[in-house]
Amino acid sequence: MPEILIGDYLFRRLKEIGIDTVFGVPGDFELALVDLIPHNGLQWVGTPNELVGAYAADGYARVKGAAALVTTFGPGELSALCGIGGAYCENVPVVHIVGYPTIPAQKSGKILHHTLGDGSYDHYVKISGELSCATTILKDPTTAVAEIDRVLNAMLFHSQPAYIGVSEEVAYAKVSTEYLDTPLVRALPRTPAESEAKVVAEIVKLLESAKAPVLVVDGGAARQSWAEHVNPLVDALKIPVFVTVMGKGIVNEESPYYKGYYGGAGSNPPTVRAAVEQADAVLWLGNYPSDLNTGFFTEIADQSFIVDFQRFSVKIGATKYDAKISHILPKLVAEFQSRPQLSQLAVAPFPAPHVPQLEKIEQDWLWDRLSTFLRAGDLIITETGTAQAGITATRFPAGSLGWTQAIYGSIGYAAGAAAGASVAAQQTGKYKRLVLVTGEGSLQLTVQAFAVLSRLGIPAVVLILNNSGYTIERFFCGWDAAYNDVYPWDYSAIFKALAPDVPNVRGFKTTTAAELDALLADEEFNSATYPQCVDMVMDRYDAPTAMKTLFELKAKNAQKTK
Amino acid sequence: MPEILIGDYLFRRLKEIGIDTVFGVPGDFELALVDLIPHNGLQWVGTPNELVGAYAADGYARVKGAAALVTTFGPGELSALCGIGGAYCENVPVVHIVGYPTIPAQKSGKILHHTLGDGSYDHYVKISGELSCATTILKDPTTAVAEIDRVLNAMLFHSQPAYIGVSEEVAYAKVSTEYLDTPLVRALPRTPAESEAKVVAEIVKLLESAKAPVLVVDGGAARQSWAEHVNPLVDALKIPVFVTVMGKGIVNEESPYYKGYYGGAGSNPPTVRAAVEQADAVLWLGNYPSDLNTGFFTEIADQSFIVDFQRFSVKIGATKYDAKISHILPKLVAEFQSRPQLSQLAVAPFPAPHVPQLEKIEQDWLWDRLSTFLRAGDLIITETGTAQAGITATRFPAGSLGWTQAIYGSIGYAAGAAAGASVAAQQTGKYKRLVLVTGEGSLQLTVQAFAVLSRLGIPAVVLILNNSGYTIERFFCGWDAAYNDVYPWDYSAIFKALAPDVPNVRGFKTTTAAELDALLADEEFNSATYPQCVDMVMDRYDAPTAMKTLFELKAKNAQKTK
Repeated sequence: MPEILIGDYLFRRLKEIGIDTVFGVPGDFELALVDLIPHNGLQWVGTPNELVGAYAADGYARVKGAAALVTTFGPGELSALCGIGGAYCENVPVVHIVGYPTIPAQKSGKILHHTLGDGSYDHYVKISGELSCATTILKDPTTAVAEIDRVLNAMLFHSQPAYIGVSEEVAYAKVSTEYLDTPLVRALPRTPAESEAKVVAEIVKLLESAKAPVLVVDGGAARQSWAEHVNPLVDALKIPVFVTVMGKGIVNEESPYYKGYYGGAGSNPPTVRAAVEQADAVLWLGNYPSDLNTGFFTEIADQSFIVDFQRFSVKIGATKYDAKISHILPKLVAEFQSRPQLSQLAVAPFPAPHVPQLEKIEQDWLWDRLSTFLRAGDLIITETGTAQAGITATRFPAGSLGWTQAIYGSIGYAAGAAAGASVAAQQTGKYKRLVLVTGEGSLQLTVQAFAVLSRLGIPAVVLILNNSGYTIERFFCGWDAAYNDVYPWDYSAIFKALAPDVPNVRGFKTTTAAELDALLADEEFNSATYPQCVDMVMDRYDAPTAMKTLFELKAKNAQKTK
Repeated sequence: MPEILIGDYLFRRLKEIGIDTVFGVPGDFELALVDLIPHNGLQWVGTPNELVGAYAADGYARVKGAAALVTTFGPGELSALCGIGGAYCENVPVVHIVGYPTIPAQKSGKILHHTLGDGSYDHYVKISGELSCATTILKDPTTAVAEIDRVLNAMLFHSQPAYIGVSEEVAYAKVSTEYLDTPLVRALPRTPAESEAKVVAEIVKLLESAKAPVLVVDGGAARQSWAEHVNPLVDALKIPVFVTVMGKGIVNEESPYYKGYYGGAGSNPPTVRAAVEQADAVLWLGNYPSDLNTGFFTEIADQSFIVDFQRFSVKIGATKYDAKISHILPKLVAEFQSRPQLSQLAVAPFPAPHVPQLEKIEQDWLWDRLSTFLRAGDLIITETGTAQAGITATRFPAGSLGWTQAIYGSIGYAAGAAAGASVAAQQTGKYKRLVLVTGEGSLQLTVQAFAVLSRLGIPAVVLILNNSGYTIERFFCGWDAAYNDVYPWDYSAIFKALAPDVPNVRGFKTTTAAELDALLADEEFNSATYPQCVDMVMDRYDAPTAMKTLFELKAKNAQKTK
């Protein structure tokens, strides 16, 4: 009977679900396991620290469907937790594989390095249990395979992180290869056809009787599992489509049906708010009603005409149906491809870029200017904070992919995620250039990610909003407070110094709109196949108009409740 | 009745226990709280990310007795956890204050940013519960003061991290100032005098009847709480004294009684092993028997003649007494100051520095060379890994303070800890110069800490063992494996680019022993009042002799058990 090492088994399972790269930082408890990676057709990408590794895994999974991170017991795994928490919150399947001390060592109660010194070996798995849909520590070769499959299947089912602790001697124990014959369960279980048909019929009825049906593309319900159906749906429905912060990045914004960003009082253009709130039927894909994804809860309150599409259910008004977004969307596409045109709400087109000539790099100008800089094949990762608020005013080109961590909102996320996403993009061949938009305060948390981008030769444009502080925090509290200041770094120099042996890494600094405009239009800059960063010096108190509007409203409401 | 805000109350309590600086990263849920810091005579030191902040707090607490870290709910706090875990493991009292959403928001179950999206607000406190001796979320102004005191007292009692969650409206609720009249409990409760006297008498009896009594200074039992008694004890006992990895840095190594580093088979000089193991009475201060602190458990097995001093107990042979190291040590000092000289085991003196002329910067040469570079008033923080193994061969000058994270062993720790320790050192006025010894692989995790050192104008010498990889990992596994390679960065350029507006930040690169020797002898380099880093290019496979010896032994033992 042919046999396989349990470690090999684990990596073959990863390969089976489309994972070709494993991210991580080496540590002694995991090294023997990491040795097995190349034998199974996988690539190891070491990251300068674990947080960057976790963010990279998140970014990779959002492009390829799943990702893996390997860290070492204790310090290594704890350093990754913030990234795992974000993946949990935003339904990104990442398996966190942790190299454990041997089972005899665990049982001995001896104090090994990386423990908490109390002889206990289960603190860390308990911690990760709060941020995972399933956890296991492989303690017995006879159950290890079943445990691996259980945990990976849970990850695929919930589209959330899972945790596997593996010690060296378990990784090197053997099991029959036959276990691999039963594939992992990648698809969600099918709802009975009758149930799905009923949901589709109800939606058709609602839309056909509506005077003003609209489509809102949000980011919940594990967006990557249903994203492929969105543009076909837009084309089939031919009704106005809007995106939320979290949903932005998968809709073809060059479509005539694309009308802009809906986020209640923060909508962009502002006329979008009235348009959506006039609608009498709203198909809401992956609704995720968090504060930052709803303009601080200023979205439409009347749920009665909303069709809320979730991973495991579809709700029409107050009625919840046993149906799944990933199954229902293609059925709706097929249905509406052959139906007469639905009633059309008149909505102003998304404004064309205007780009006035300005002295300073102003926020509103920048987001507008990016609409013409971006191009098909771009992978556009935007940091939380001011950049996240601003990017909703940028029109993304057809054939691009983008996202921002809208719910969890961890500063520092974007740089790490961009590194991982770029690795995935290279593997899919779909996206040619990375555009990372971040703030300097955020970048300082995970500046190490620059090194990964450069070393892997990612054609990247990193745009840094350098506005001398945590500008979005100023809007919350401490307008002039020293704690909201970020001390200046020389980003261009750092970008180059993190990859001194990589040729052609370029850093630019721009202080005027004219300079930046010229750089963004420069042919060499645009055709570069190497990583470039642009330090954009901006005013510390400036913000995108939509963000200003929202915070003014928030302040007024706070005043009222006093 | 005079009143005080609960937030002010919290900061006054910190001030009361010697905390003058609060480290952290701003985030919206904590900003209103952070606004109160300066009103209470405390200083805010923002760090580029939370992990650096947590390490900085650990370093600060090891110098000043306690420290505080403020982060925001969710991503902020999770990013700090690895640092908190290290503080828990190594008995460092750090209070982790986390800015929470308001209590009404928590109760509403609404999805705020930074949550996990499931409407639950208690995941994070459960996580920190595994790494804290006490936790609380302040939910009610009427109990908040009692909760703060309970948690801070637990922190002081256990000398371990504690966790306090505070929302804005609770921080701004008022309580009577009278609560401040009852001080926190800084000292451990006193054991009955009779019990202490018995322990002292037993120890005197043991030492006076011994032919070869020795003292081993380890780092457990919250070292900083008893460190001040160690050199008086050495002077009073006049018997050979040895340090472990974790204990190194508080003994006056210029004392004639100092004989070197004891770590079983990894002892330095190697003759130390036989010396300690010939002893017939061993006073072991803060014994912490972890793998890396015992030369992979190769220390003396016979416990019968060991006096094991712990935070809450003293064990003589197999008998455990109700007595505390911090209370017993001063009594022993007083006792032996007036007693006749104890029997003396002849032990070779710690070897004088020799410094042969070499081409390359070899490990053994480096650690020897540092013995003459270091000077009184230095604060010497050494990273885990190769540096930690090497530093045991360096003689520290009298009047210096040093440590390494010997048990938890988190790479990246030293740079962050050094930043915080330096802030504390400035406040105590005791230590004038920081010497940080780290490896390039470790530094890549937390390179941001450079920015803190420079911005605060710390007179620092950062010595970077740049040996193209995680060298200690090569010794564990993967001697030539690509995953153990660390990609080159230009550390000098980064050091300067992280503080472009700070004058006099200097970076050096040395590739030969002669160059490094000249730099370490250079007068300007030695008298610098600004931060300097030295990129020391070294061989990737070289290691300190003691480390090589240990790993050879480990390999032999592994062979035997196969």
